[in-house]
Amino acid sequence: MKIKNNFKKWSIIFLTLLSVFSMEAQENTSKKPLLIEEQGSFAVGGTIITNPGTFNPLKPTPEGQTFRGDHAYVFYQIPAKAKKLPLVMWHGIGQFSKTWETTPDGREGYQNIFLRRNFPVYILDQPRRGNAGRSTVSSTIEPVPDEQQWFNVFRVGVWPKYFDNVQFARDSATLNQYFRSMTPNIGTIDINVTTNAASALFEKIGPAILVTHSHSGGMGWITAVKNQNVKAIVSYEPGSGFIFPAGEVPQPIASSAGALEASSVPMEDFMKLTKIPIIIYYGDNIPEKPSDNSGADGWRARLQMARLWRDAVNKHGGDVTVVHLPEAGMKGNTHFPFSDLNNIEVADLMSKWLKDKKLDQ
Amino acid sequence: MKIKNNFKKWSIIFLTLLSVFSMEAQENTSKKPLLIEEQGSFAVGGTIITNPGTFNPLKPTPEGQTFRGDHAYVFYQIPAKAKKLPLVMWHGIGQFSKTWETTPDGREGYQNIFLRRNFPVYILDQPRRGNAGRSTVSSTIEPVPDEQQWFNVFRVGVWPKYFDNVQFARDSATLNQYFRSMTPNIGTIDINVTTNAASALFEKIGPAILVTHSHSGGMGWITAVKNQNVKAIVSYEPGSGFIFPAGEVPQPIASSAGALEASSVPMEDFMKLTKIPIIIYYGDNIPEKPSDNSGADGWRARLQMARLWRDAVNKHGGDVTVVHLPEAGMKGNTHFPFSDLNNIEVADLMSKWLKDKKLDQ
Repeated sequence: MKIKNNFKKWSIIFLTLLSVFSMEAQENTSKKPLLIEEQGSFAVGGTIITNPGTFNPLKPTPEGQTFRGDHAYVFYQIPAKAKKLPLVMWHGIGQFSKTWETTPDGREGYQNIFLRRNFPVYILDQPRRGNAGRSTVSSTIEPVPDEQQWFNVFRVGVWPKYFDNVQFARDSATLNQYFRSMTPNIGTIDINVTTNAASALFEKIGPAILVTHSHSGGMGWITAVKNQNVKAIVSYEPGSGFIFPAGEVPQPIASSAGALEASSVPMEDFMKLTKIPIIIYYGDNIPEKPSDNSGADGWRARLQMARLWRDAVNKHGGDVTVVHLPEAGMKGNTHFPFSDLNNIEVADLMSKWLKDKKLDQ
Repeated sequence: MKIKNNFKKWSIIFLTLLSVFSMEAQENTSKKPLLIEEQGSFAVGGTIITNPGTFNPLKPTPEGQTFRGDHAYVFYQIPAKAKKLPLVMWHGIGQFSKTWETTPDGREGYQNIFLRRNFPVYILDQPRRGNAGRSTVSSTIEPVPDEQQWFNVFRVGVWPKYFDNVQFARDSATLNQYFRSMTPNIGTIDINVTTNAASALFEKIGPAILVTHSHSGGMGWITAVKNQNVKAIVSYEPGSGFIFPAGEVPQPIASSAGALEASSVPMEDFMKLTKIPIIIYYGDNIPEKPSDNSGADGWRARLQMARLWRDAVNKHGGDVTVVHLPEAGMKGNTHFPFSDLNNIEVADLMSKWLKDKKLDQ
């Protein structure tokens, strides 16, 4: 094994030199190959239904059979020279792992961007979504036309008009990929089921950084309460599920999308959120005053609630930052900043924060 | 750009040497990193439902909105020094892209194995399955306990007993991953919808080799009839959908799983299947004589039908090979030879065939 080890050492030295040289020579054009030490997939968490009776292999009926469901499905890649803390990326409402992959206009998404920055990347489909479709509850799924509504809610524009400054390619092929990046719930979203599966993932892989989007924002706070392997959270446009200590829950915030309510958790649970660094980003084209465009107006309420939540966590000793991207000089971002046209700059902001918090060792 | 090109040339030369040396030194332990030139995902094919009426952004209803569905979802990786013809891997019944990823017991599946052999690998979720869940038809999905039945149909054993020689790890964690690799249909399987999407993929990526499993076997023949970019087919345990020229359709083959029927296509379509090399593999523990174990007995009929089909295609000038793995000296394979314990040897057989047919250039 001596020869093998020596060889390995030399390979690593050379590949390091190679990648340094490559960065210089190619001026970071993102064109160099990804060097993946390991990649694969697995199911994690979930439950088992055991049907009473006896299974007869010669005349099978559901009697005496089992059904596993409500797990999450995870695809992971570990790059060479990997950083210590992996990124776990969790999609939002109506979405699946695609959120972090190729952008609708065909550029690299967060999966590749952060592999290139040497983070192990775990991408999950939450229970009852995408590749984690085996659900323990029954459901009926109807093809209800809804794309124009998502165009508005995701703040690409007000259909059929794009926002003037929007960081979104305006060709029809892009829109086609964008809308086909949705997939239905197979059974209701059960917050306990989804956060149990996410927590099981952190149990399996150990300390890691959780990256959430939209609906997984609120589920992310709960996952961090459930599992102390969540060492930090980067949350893009958390949509609901802000949790406060009993007695400190703010009034619901009205918007034309409906009232946004927060909920309460025991102080002991809340305090766990003060132990880890958390950053929250919101994009552009969020109205400053109440608007009758409910698609956009909901985000005004959510941004406002996120700031109240930041203040509550920080008052108890936490480390929450809320960045409204236009205030940081980044204009035109939609509900999906990580796949917008300027997603490299959006990723740079995140990288800087990870570095500041020493999460990129 | 001169420097960059020279650099690239030297890198390639070095990496080639490195990989040759690495193979020697590491004795093919599959531990060297994957060098991925490009990876990403996209939706392909599908249709659009356009709802009549006018969309009102301030008071949205389904009126005037659209719904895109019935596309396939594809994740692809292109390794360094890629071979010319990519492999397109298509899962079977109740399965999704996971089929080709990490095996139930945690080893590398066909995705990694063939990336290591320098093939671009495209893995698809057929329309209405897994990540391609946006279906244009409504459906009701129930959690019906069925795992013991699949254990039998997939020829792991006769529940709860494993086949004596089975190439399947016998721990409960493996079985757990195995059963969680299933996901339901979201709407009926429509052969026209699935093969149109698969054909759209071959239209997009150009000439490639189709690798099918079980239910996608029959859909694979149809895809090859639809699209001449299908340059070869490797089919693991095709389950149904054997197509013959009108007038040459054999009698249904009886089994305790029900009668296996073949169907007819116009001679002109059938003849397209004589223009490409095709190989079909079946695993072990298929009864030789009719058996009352319907889980296994169905495969006796399918193997027999595959041989009739081979004879029909070859009679018309085709190049179809049927390999019953035990006859080739490989024992104990289940319905999933490509993820069985001996999957490297199973892949070696496939590689040898690809080489013989000059499909690995």
